[in-house]
Amino acid sequence: MPEVRIVEVGLRDGLQNESAILPTEVKRKIAEGLIAAGVRDIEATSFVHPRWIPQLADAEELAGSLPRAEGVRYRALVPNRKGLERALDTPIDEYAVFLSASETHNRKNINKSIDETFPVLEEVVQLARERGKRVRGYVSTVFGCPYEGEVSVAQVAKVCDRLFEMGVYEVSLGDTIGVAHPRQVKEVLQDLLRLFPADRLAGHFHDTRGTALVNAYVALEMGITTLDSSFGGLGGCPYAPGASGNVATEDLVYMLEGMGVSTGIDLEALCRVSASVQERIGRRLPSKVLQSTLASRPRKRGEKE
Amino acid sequence: MPEVRIVEVGLRDGLQNESAILPTEVKRKIAEGLIAAGVRDIEATSFVHPRWIPQLADAEELAGSLPRAEGVRYRALVPNRKGLERALDTPIDEYAVFLSASETHNRKNINKSIDETFPVLEEVVQLARERGKRVRGYVSTVFGCPYEGEVSVAQVAKVCDRLFEMGVYEVSLGDTIGVAHPRQVKEVLQDLLRLFPADRLAGHFHDTRGTALVNAYVALEMGITTLDSSFGGLGGCPYAPGASGNVATEDLVYMLEGMGVSTGIDLEALCRVSASVQERIGRRLPSKVLQSTLASRPRKRGEKE
Repeated sequence: MPEVRIVEVGLRDGLQNESAILPTEVKRKIAEGLIAAGVRDIEATSFVHPRWIPQLADAEELAGSLPRAEGVRYRALVPNRKGLERALDTPIDEYAVFLSASETHNRKNINKSIDETFPVLEEVVQLARERGKRVRGYVSTVFGCPYEGEVSVAQVAKVCDRLFEMGVYEVSLGDTIGVAHPRQVKEVLQDLLRLFPADRLAGHFHDTRGTALVNAYVALEMGITTLDSSFGGLGGCPYAPGASGNVATEDLVYMLEGMGVSTGIDLEALCRVSASVQERIGRRLPSKVLQSTLASRPRKRGEKE
Repeated sequence: MPEVRIVEVGLRDGLQNESAILPTEVKRKIAEGLIAAGVRDIEATSFVHPRWIPQLADAEELAGSLPRAEGVRYRALVPNRKGLERALDTPIDEYAVFLSASETHNRKNINKSIDETFPVLEEVVQLARERGKRVRGYVSTVFGCPYEGEVSVAQVAKVCDRLFEMGVYEVSLGDTIGVAHPRQVKEVLQDLLRLFPADRLAGHFHDTRGTALVNAYVALEMGITTLDSSFGGLGGCPYAPGASGNVATEDLVYMLEGMGVSTGIDLEALCRVSASVQERIGRRLPSKVLQSTLASRPRKRGEKE
């Protein structure tokens, strides 16, 4: 049976785009629930400066309190050497560095040009690997930039190339603002797969315009077997407040398992995690599978519709 | 440039699954807005007994008040001879008959077995054609039944065959409860396209589990060029109250136009229609394109987030 590795990014990419700031203990319980549901790859937090993303300001504390379980790997974002030093003091298993494929987005996000960013990441990757840690690379705005519009595949390829050269084991291709359509995903991947093997690339699709799941499907059809998603579809888009976040893990799992692709994730158990988070943050999460599961579940007495 | 014909079913399939009952005048204005946005095929109502679907009880009045425009065709559902007689007294351009591919759903929905339903529909189609009206056929539960689970392609093929035999010009294949996944859509269509030409089939996907858009994409890849959708993603699922309705026209148009497939529909104008309906019925409609458009639009003073 074919398999897809789902990288659950809800605790990081989801929460960093939610206005609610969850207590560390709640995040720890979410991780517990995710593990019980069969999730193995969990991006738990980000070691950026706490001032940038207050939702993830408890990175060290959370990292130190996460439940351990057989086969579970925790990941965290690391922006620079300072972040790496913080991360190395925690039991996080592997790291991710990030930059954008488009110059303007990179500058707004990281305050550096793309070329100025490479040596910063290179140092992080090198030091991390010396300490026995794998590093993933994230490339943002692969399918479009909120400032520049279209992004050339050549530019994406150049950034991926530099990341692999510095030693990342995988590059996750981000549709940061959720503009990609399936034909574009097919064409971009066709080009990139001439340069890089499919098992070194991951798909990271946002659902801002409803196309995340179809884009994930197309990526799978092209041979990509690692996909990022967020439980409940948690999160949003900083460029369109109120819009949807990452593709929902539930919806992705429903589609994949239906297609006979194994994910190792138990949908019912995962919906229980998302339902509790939805109750906590007080808004309907975007996952359709979650909502239809909640809708068809017998209601407890006194519970509101 | 390839084209897709979008059949806008929000006024019928959308509204029949909304608890709000909209006044006829509001529906007329929606039709006006849809036409201004470039929509040409509008399923406006259903001539079922008003007691069954109170949301559409104004079928005659609405049909008589709909704005006329060059190239616009109005459609309505017609369950039986009585419904046909009501419809024939209105200026609705074409009709649709319906039944299910699964026995139990057909019985619960129409109160007849499938074999008992055929002659009823046959009479409708014959009389309608004698009056110069085209008739479409809807087949429900093609990809799964809420009572029986899996539905065999042979059963779907049999029902389609009978519909074509009685003279419908097109069959719309309904994923009534939104359970289909893309591989299933591909396989079912592969089988059906051995029997029927692609231009006689339409795809009608519900988004109960988030797969509507990817299923529409797969249908398109298989050569289907007529797709049903609902503005704003209006509607729901009677088997999962609170779940999503038809695939949202906005999301479908965004995907198709992005892929270079022409729909003739102006997204901004369509979002204005959906935004006004959303305000009226007082709940966030499911269309992601609608929500991201509203989110990135400058807010009027005093307007709530």
